[in-house]
Amino acid sequence: MPDKVAAPEIDRLIKLLARLPGLGQRSARRAVLFLMKRRDHLLLPLAEAMRAAAEAVRVCSRCGNLDSRDPCGVCADPQRATGVLCIVEEVGDLWALERTAAFSGRYHILGGTLSALDGRGPEQLNVDTLIERVREEAISEVILALSATVDGQTTAHYLSERLADLGVTVTHLAHGVPLGGELDHLDDGTLTAALRARR
Amino acid sequence: MPDKVAAPEIDRLIKLLARLPGLGQRSARRAVLFLMKRRDHLLLPLAEAMRAAAEAVRVCSRCGNLDSRDPCGVCADPQRATGVLCIVEEVGDLWALERTAAFSGRYHILGGTLSALDGRGPEQLNVDTLIERVREEAISEVILALSATVDGQTTAHYLSERLADLGVTVTHLAHGVPLGGELDHLDDGTLTAALRARR
Repeated sequence: MPDKVAAPEIDRLIKLLARLPGLGQRSARRAVLFLMKRRDHLLLPLAEAMRAAAEAVRVCSRCGNLDSRDPCGVCADPQRATGVLCIVEEVGDLWALERTAAFSGRYHILGGTLSALDGRGPEQLNVDTLIERVREEAISEVILALSATVDGQTTAHYLSERLADLGVTVTHLAHGVPLGGELDHLDDGTLTAALRARR
Repeated sequence: MPDKVAAPEIDRLIKLLARLPGLGQRSARRAVLFLMKRRDHLLLPLAEAMRAAAEAVRVCSRCGNLDSRDPCGVCADPQRATGVLCIVEEVGDLWALERTAAFSGRYHILGGTLSALDGRGPEQLNVDTLIERVREEAISEVILALSATVDGQTTAHYLSERLADLGVTVTHLAHGVPLGGELDHLDDGTLTAALRARR
């Protein structure tokens, strides 16, 4: 409610910024004041960067990644191992895996998980294109890098069944103790899984 | 470091967003993915709102408030009580006071506090314009609504001295127990102040 005091342009900016994840009304107000003080060095560059991203960035028609090229940089990279496909829920998961530099194959972005609660079925996810790619790109291994949540594991189970007839090896990320994690603070499920998968 | 994977437009947007208060690298990445999924409903409107705010919003030449008009809406409002001036550090403080609807006078924004640590002296604040306004606008009361921090109180003390010869009444916000605050969780200083100012 700086509604009556602040300029309508400020009110509108606060309202839109408050919709971002992690920002509420209060932090959006703070961000706008911060931006107004840095008009030329941050506010205008940010407006321009948003416009540029909105115009340039597209969804890769092959894997679902975001890039200004289609196919995206990962799909187009000839140095990437063929034959291995890593299935992730969202583009953010692809970024996280790329930061590890531990995977050199290509990706396929599902666009979420199956969810009984949210009424999300296979037809809302990029499953058909996945099956198609496994057939056409001579994939030998599919890595299911999905969340260790009920929905994530339900989705993994569903995909395993769909992929069963295609002659590919289906693997999952290992469960266990996170590096730096103290046993004392770990939940029972993870501890049990780590114990069972001991090597 | 999605640097090598994501489009340069995405990288740039993440870097700029991460500079906002309350957002780090991780939450900026999350915000960008959120925005990319809402290209037409949030990303483009936000870019446009930022551009519009950057173009329209100016600093009020009288009080230092932000508005698309100069003098700002508060200064120009004929229904505002003349003669009382509320001194605040930043525009955000003006918004906070306006939300209470408990003050009907006009404001003067200092632009911060004196700070020995940050080397901020009176010449970096809007002090001279304040003295000028007190003289010219026939101000009878100046309310110092500054932070209850060392710097805020140093600034209040300095302003009191500067205003001493001008024949205005200088008042301060009351210190005490915040509404809903439990004594048990209150710091000793506040509790002492509240006890001394008992009514």
